[in-house]
Amino acid sequence: MLLLRPIVRGSWVLQRTPRLAAVAWGAHPQVWTPSRTHGTWSLGDGSRRWKVTAVGALLGLGAGLAYGDHRRRAAEAEPDAEAMPGAPYPVFTRQEVGRHRSLAERVWVTYGHEVFDITDFVELHPGGKSKILLAAGGALEPFWAMYAVHSQEHVLQLLRAYKVGELSPEQQSQPTQGDPYAGDPPRHPALKVNSLKPFNAEPPAELLTETYLTPNQLFFKRNHLPVPAVAAASYRLQVEGPGGRVLELSLPELKRRFPKHEVTVTLQCAGNRRSEMSRVRQVKGLEWGVAAISTARWGGVRLRDVLAHAGYGEEEAAGEQHVCFEGLDKDLGGAAYGASIPFRTAMGRGADVLLAYEMNGEELPRDHGYPLRVVVPGVVGARNVKWLGRVSVSREESPSHWQQNDYKGFSPAVDWDTVDFTTAPAIQELPVQSAITAPAPGATVPPGELTVKGYAWSGGGRGVVRVDVSLDGGRTWRVAELTGEEQGPGRAWAWRLWQLTAPVPPDAAELDIVCKAVDASYNVQPDTVEPIWNLRGVLSNAWHRVRVTVAEE
Amino acid sequence: MLLLRPIVRGSWVLQRTPRLAAVAWGAHPQVWTPSRTHGTWSLGDGSRRWKVTAVGALLGLGAGLAYGDHRRRAAEAEPDAEAMPGAPYPVFTRQEVGRHRSLAERVWVTYGHEVFDITDFVELHPGGKSKILLAAGGALEPFWAMYAVHSQEHVLQLLRAYKVGELSPEQQSQPTQGDPYAGDPPRHPALKVNSLKPFNAEPPAELLTETYLTPNQLFFKRNHLPVPAVAAASYRLQVEGPGGRVLELSLPELKRRFPKHEVTVTLQCAGNRRSEMSRVRQVKGLEWGVAAISTARWGGVRLRDVLAHAGYGEEEAAGEQHVCFEGLDKDLGGAAYGASIPFRTAMGRGADVLLAYEMNGEELPRDHGYPLRVVVPGVVGARNVKWLGRVSVSREESPSHWQQNDYKGFSPAVDWDTVDFTTAPAIQELPVQSAITAPAPGATVPPGELTVKGYAWSGGGRGVVRVDVSLDGGRTWRVAELTGEEQGPGRAWAWRLWQLTAPVPPDAAELDIVCKAVDASYNVQPDTVEPIWNLRGVLSNAWHRVRVTVAEE
Repeated sequence: MLLLRPIVRGSWVLQRTPRLAAVAWGAHPQVWTPSRTHGTWSLGDGSRRWKVTAVGALLGLGAGLAYGDHRRRAAEAEPDAEAMPGAPYPVFTRQEVGRHRSLAERVWVTYGHEVFDITDFVELHPGGKSKILLAAGGALEPFWAMYAVHSQEHVLQLLRAYKVGELSPEQQSQPTQGDPYAGDPPRHPALKVNSLKPFNAEPPAELLTETYLTPNQLFFKRNHLPVPAVAAASYRLQVEGPGGRVLELSLPELKRRFPKHEVTVTLQCAGNRRSEMSRVRQVKGLEWGVAAISTARWGGVRLRDVLAHAGYGEEEAAGEQHVCFEGLDKDLGGAAYGASIPFRTAMGRGADVLLAYEMNGEELPRDHGYPLRVVVPGVVGARNVKWLGRVSVSREESPSHWQQNDYKGFSPAVDWDTVDFTTAPAIQELPVQSAITAPAPGATVPPGELTVKGYAWSGGGRGVVRVDVSLDGGRTWRVAELTGEEQGPGRAWAWRLWQLTAPVPPDAAELDIVCKAVDASYNVQPDTVEPIWNLRGVLSNAWHRVRVTVAEE
Repeated sequence: MLLLRPIVRGSWVLQRTPRLAAVAWGAHPQVWTPSRTHGTWSLGDGSRRWKVTAVGALLGLGAGLAYGDHRRRAAEAEPDAEAMPGAPYPVFTRQEVGRHRSLAERVWVTYGHEVFDITDFVELHPGGKSKILLAAGGALEPFWAMYAVHSQEHVLQLLRAYKVGELSPEQQSQPTQGDPYAGDPPRHPALKVNSLKPFNAEPPAELLTETYLTPNQLFFKRNHLPVPAVAAASYRLQVEGPGGRVLELSLPELKRRFPKHEVTVTLQCAGNRRSEMSRVRQVKGLEWGVAAISTARWGGVRLRDVLAHAGYGEEEAAGEQHVCFEGLDKDLGGAAYGASIPFRTAMGRGADVLLAYEMNGEELPRDHGYPLRVVVPGVVGARNVKWLGRVSVSREESPSHWQQNDYKGFSPAVDWDTVDFTTAPAIQELPVQSAITAPAPGATVPPGELTVKGYAWSGGGRGVVRVDVSLDGGRTWRVAELTGEEQGPGRAWAWRLWQLTAPVPPDAAELDIVCKAVDASYNVQPDTVEPIWNLRGVLSNAWHRVRVTVAEE
């Protein structure tokens, strides 16, 4: 077991472990080459091929780790031909390291007091060659601070294989680096944090359904990058019209030119309830509970009005186009978060897609996209781009990592060795969903009568028409009472809350509480998690189960 | 056990069993009163209330039988105070019976050689008072010939309770009645008939997926009434415009005025795969296998063009309206088959709702609605009204039985005692569906390699994006290959066929083959039938399972 933490004066316990050879793979010549335009790489060694996925912007929630696993396994299988425990490393200055900034000059980086020649890894980097070269000749820390996924044992183990020296002792103090997340806004202490940098958090389930509209402070937060600091005064939304003409709209102009439109919309992260999938088999991603879903009353302008103003008509939809969004949240390489939705979703007659500047009657909070964000009712959270910088229309979906190589569903048979992201459609509308928010799992409930509460929602404006609840694991069912706003058919964008009060069976010591919802197309939730398991842990919408103990009289 | 069949000279074995008293319920005064406009009746006996549903047009696929069950149970629980086995009945002539044609004069009917005073039953008739009064003073046979649901033991048992006499012997021969189904067209002998009158039949599963477009002769047939004989020359479609002005359009006028539009559309009966639900617990309805679904290339005019011509604009959709259809197929009381769809389904920009006069390049066959029918892509078969007579737009859904009190989904907890049809939405878009068409259940398959075939489809234009197949009951999965037309996103109206060729596990003696599909909104099929069981046996879309034996080498 390798424990990795800083000890005094910037030294790391890492150095005390035997090092692995950088040439571990030399015995089996393997070539990694980009085999597709959109981020799928192939590794051929003459006998078999693996595929891993290039993780845009080094985000690495998934494929990067999978690659690391392969690499580590390969390395561990290979006895270290050059291991010389205790042998001294050459010592370099930062200036010397700084001369190695390209493949021609070799690519060197530092981490702590150690120097690494990662030239041979550049092409292997799951996040892409261009991203890793941003760190060439300097320290890795500022980049890894940006992408917390690197702070894992096997990533450092991988790096170790490339060690070529030590920094001269007088230069071993950590380079002073700004924390890219230092400017993130303060958050409510009740939130359950799944990742601090970038910030990802959900409210406690028991608070989630206390109110029909989720308070802004408690609304689940799902950031992919640091929260950008956007000055409202200088903010301009760029809208690319037909022919490439770019319209720039200030916030006051947007508010003045287009009618204000308000819609109550539930947003749900594709990974909501992922932790239930991880219990079946480990998946890659943030371990969301049941509360990566929230509802707000959004106010803003209709995207269709803005697109019409830019010169697009409803007829432009012919031939299938996409409306692409770019956020102002950018990675260190300057690449923005991005996503797209089908043109028809944006421009349909009943389309309620908003460019929102208000959330529950307040100015949009920074964590939710201040000053302007997209709200796409009925569609997965990932397309609801925050800190909106640019809107354009394209024959192609957004080229962003999150559109192309993430947020897609796969068969349980597909693993990181076999996944091909081009074979699955980007998630847009989400399937029917429901979960129990009270009682809490493991709670002790009084005998007599029990009230079960929860939420239910479906994508595509398909309202929830019924929620069935069972206290006996699904053998018998009762119909729950639905509460909350009942929106029009085809435009039921917000959840329904529900509750059921039922007698606790007198002889029951435990209850296996289950809920399942039915939407307006009579789609239902699947019974179990296993058959919908997928490597990214998205679309987790099996029946929700909560087991509780019944107190004795 | 009561065996009921005609014996010589119009006599029935029925008369040989002890009769039940007509006053069986007298001890508990109960009043059946219509409690709602649309066919829900309440039975109050002071201590509890039941609800049953009035079955329009005596169709009786369900609620009528449920009512009969109540009645029978009540009757059986009550000792027959007036039973006089062997006592002679008074004898009446048909003329005498004919004088009893109203509630004031009492309502008498004959069945076989027996005479019944059904006055007290008129208000109880699940099919409605007006329908039963059509038979007043005469024979039941022509009505029961129309609605085969009456040919069941407990219906006759119910009738028996009202016996008041016998027909005079010289009048006991069956009245000569035309068979309302005598004019039905000939059908293909390969069809598996679920009901002859009205005609309901499906193709054998193994033929269903032989071709992507189902041959007209094999396309599943679901009639609610006799096939009307419509003369093309005199045919006029009535279209009610805003303000009630009625437009009449002949077939040549329709073809001349509006552009021809062709769409490949899969139609599925709400009851497809109902037999699987019946295996869990008996449901009311035709015992469809997996083939109450078929696909054709439909040609006709767009409904939106016709509605626009009649004066409706897209904006008329405000406030939610419905497009109501009436068929030319009518019950004996003159009530037409009817259904409605939301206005937005008909008038949306991408709406492909057709008034179709062609099916797979041929004139519409009589069984499929000659000369004109509605084809509503992505929506349950029941709304695809055949032999279309009239189109109108209304603030209300179609008042027809089939819209109001049938073709709705309920919780497995709801039975015929508790069902309230006003609480569930009329089925429109159907949920994701798939089934295995080969190998057949119980087949013996060779060892080595197995090819599994089937279909997959989803409602609302949501294309099928994946089909997973398991040979081991759902423990492991493989992704099937999809074939057939790939239609545009949001307008994927037709099924995909699929197949998977996989090695048969060498040690397997039996295979539990399972399929499940995923649609464009990532909705999936539920694992099992029990939790989606419903009293009408509709929406049966659990994983499909076929068990086969593996032949020895």
